[in-house]
Amino acid sequence: MALIVQKYGGTSVGSIDYIRAVAKKIIKNRELGQDLVVVVSAMAGETDRLVQLAHSLSQLPNPRELDVLLSTGEQVTIALLSLALLEQGCPARSYTGGQVGIHTDSAHNKARILGIDVSKIRADLAEGKVVIVAGFQGVDEHGNITTLGRGGSDTTAVALAAALQADECQIYTDVDGVYTVDPKVEPEARRLSNVTIDEMLELAGNGAKVMQIRAVEFAGQCDIPVRVLSTFQEGPGTLIANETENLQRAVVSGIAFNRDEAKFLLQGIPDKPGIAAAIFHPLSAAHIEVDMIVQTLGEEGTADLAFTVHQRDFALTLSILEKVAKTINIKRFIYDQAVAKLSLVGVGLRSHAGVAGQMFQVLGQEGINIQLVSTSEIKISVILAEACLEQAVRALHRSFQLGVESKKMVASC
Amino acid sequence: MALIVQKYGGTSVGSIDYIRAVAKKIIKNRELGQDLVVVVSAMAGETDRLVQLAHSLSQLPNPRELDVLLSTGEQVTIALLSLALLEQGCPARSYTGGQVGIHTDSAHNKARILGIDVSKIRADLAEGKVVIVAGFQGVDEHGNITTLGRGGSDTTAVALAAALQADECQIYTDVDGVYTVDPKVEPEARRLSNVTIDEMLELAGNGAKVMQIRAVEFAGQCDIPVRVLSTFQEGPGTLIANETENLQRAVVSGIAFNRDEAKFLLQGIPDKPGIAAAIFHPLSAAHIEVDMIVQTLGEEGTADLAFTVHQRDFALTLSILEKVAKTINIKRFIYDQAVAKLSLVGVGLRSHAGVAGQMFQVLGQEGINIQLVSTSEIKISVILAEACLEQAVRALHRSFQLGVESKKMVASC
Repeated sequence: MALIVQKYGGTSVGSIDYIRAVAKKIIKNRELGQDLVVVVSAMAGETDRLVQLAHSLSQLPNPRELDVLLSTGEQVTIALLSLALLEQGCPARSYTGGQVGIHTDSAHNKARILGIDVSKIRADLAEGKVVIVAGFQGVDEHGNITTLGRGGSDTTAVALAAALQADECQIYTDVDGVYTVDPKVEPEARRLSNVTIDEMLELAGNGAKVMQIRAVEFAGQCDIPVRVLSTFQEGPGTLIANETENLQRAVVSGIAFNRDEAKFLLQGIPDKPGIAAAIFHPLSAAHIEVDMIVQTLGEEGTADLAFTVHQRDFALTLSILEKVAKTINIKRFIYDQAVAKLSLVGVGLRSHAGVAGQMFQVLGQEGINIQLVSTSEIKISVILAEACLEQAVRALHRSFQLGVESKKMVASC
Repeated sequence: MALIVQKYGGTSVGSIDYIRAVAKKIIKNRELGQDLVVVVSAMAGETDRLVQLAHSLSQLPNPRELDVLLSTGEQVTIALLSLALLEQGCPARSYTGGQVGIHTDSAHNKARILGIDVSKIRADLAEGKVVIVAGFQGVDEHGNITTLGRGGSDTTAVALAAALQADECQIYTDVDGVYTVDPKVEPEARRLSNVTIDEMLELAGNGAKVMQIRAVEFAGQCDIPVRVLSTFQEGPGTLIANETENLQRAVVSGIAFNRDEAKFLLQGIPDKPGIAAAIFHPLSAAHIEVDMIVQTLGEEGTADLAFTVHQRDFALTLSILEKVAKTINIKRFIYDQAVAKLSLVGVGLRSHAGVAGQMFQVLGQEGINIQLVSTSEIKISVILAEACLEQAVRALHRSFQLGVESKKMVASC
């Protein structure tokens, strides 16, 4: 009998009616002969409400007590989902993270799972019960309640799937899978029937936020096949799994992008050790997250350094750089408040040198200026004016025929 | 150093501002040199909200899952109160019932406390922390979350006080103590500076709902002095403690009453074994709670039986009695939909035969007809027309001089 771990996010359990619908879905799966362990998040909006309560008492809430507070969100959902299942005649039993033995370290608000004692779950499954587990939470060695941080329910689901050696981990959400690009930008965006863990990491890190990055990494390490599906419509979703050698892949799997970036270009800085640190250390001290960094040689003896930050950090970054500019010699100092990052992602990029060329040609034909380029093994990223982003996305989607499923890929699925 | 267990009810922690005020109160007590363990209820309205959620999924919610749901109410409060204390610089630590080792039986929704492991609390107190404990909840031997039933936070507080051998258990609520009678009915009602456990049981059972009955019983068994105080105003409150032999008491301590009763009088029923069962068994099977029962001899070979039920059960009781009347021989069958019960309570009643006489005389002078009388060791109850209740209460309060503190009583406190 197949053992499936399912996870339903906050939107999927956002109301009593939705919870009843999820119960129906679970019963349907169970009737197909599956053993089911179900992980749930807090009802949509509940975690925010609890965080607000905490912040109304304390600007920087004590992490241990915040976890006591936040963990109630999922506890409410597990009870309600169990009640819905029992009401529909399906044997079910709920567990908090602590009850079911999800042991974590003591890093409150961002704990890591150390181990799971699955004996209770195994016993319940043997009795024919559906087991409902609160996502996002666990318990440390002293019995303190811990939480895994935002999106931690995905991690709970993957960790449970690994501990139970489940056949599949299914992440139910409000989209029906991972797309070649955001369908809001490109109507011809196509749902990918499968994607590798590495591709998913690049897509997620670049704004395609279907699933928590840490959970994707974890699934890769444990070799757990993960399927992203919609709670609200039928369909096979997208299977995320480690790359297998015999798998023929499309060159480019998808396009990811980040709006809201701001770019800084420092020209003619001294090309010597310690300069990069002199620039980036004050930024990190101010908790500014630097995204893309590109350095090239400039005029003789100098270098050009460019990087991007989130637009909300623009003013602070500018004021820090103005101070830094006084201590090191910078010839020119250019910035742009409104740029976007666009990335082509695909494991096929490894063996296909021509992708960058085709990308640059397409953007050139569209009259879009490429401001920065950065590449990794399975990704090419460019920085361009934010106003050109959607045009660029659509042109590239068309040029790489992402709207059409590759025949090789279909054959290999 | 005095060890005090305090309990704050739902109204006392009903908003963020109230929680902040409770934290200030705790800090003030702590500065007086008290070691404090604080039990809290769910924020006012929260338990009802959760019950409604459950009922929207299931008419008869599974008891285990209902406890998982309801216990989140207190868990939210312990975290918020801890945050408020920590924010004000007071070391504090919160525990759920399960975390702190409140072990109960497995009777979900109405569990009984079997034992408390106070080692964590002792350790925290030794470190100078205020310990915050979720009321109303515990954990059974299998690790399932249990709740103690409505008002169970009072029981948690008393049980903790007993386990810790605390000097006093303080119940903070929205009234400033136990009164001689409901001040809404008699403006001259006086707060009692102390009251015995037995008196409190009679007063609580008769409608003076300051504290849960089971918790009062428990305090008596464990010989824990309990003080009822107001969260919102200063004052010594009312001390509830077991009777001590040398304590000179006022004859009548207070007046309790229940409106909303309905009376049934069955005249001329056969005076033989099994008849009472034939009448009351069908009522209890229909979950109708019968309050006062009085039986007297009627005409030769027959008996008269009278009893009261809550007005909401009137119609159902009537229909059941009509069926019963067909199987047993009842001469006359009288009922009254609108009666009230009034009780004089006081340990002094034991040794003062004249109280009943004075009571009947006062009511007679007021032209109020007494329909039924029932007495217990420390209580005399009468049933009268609901319309006369307030007049009766005021006349008796005056006649027994309840508005004036007895000098003997003051001396003995």
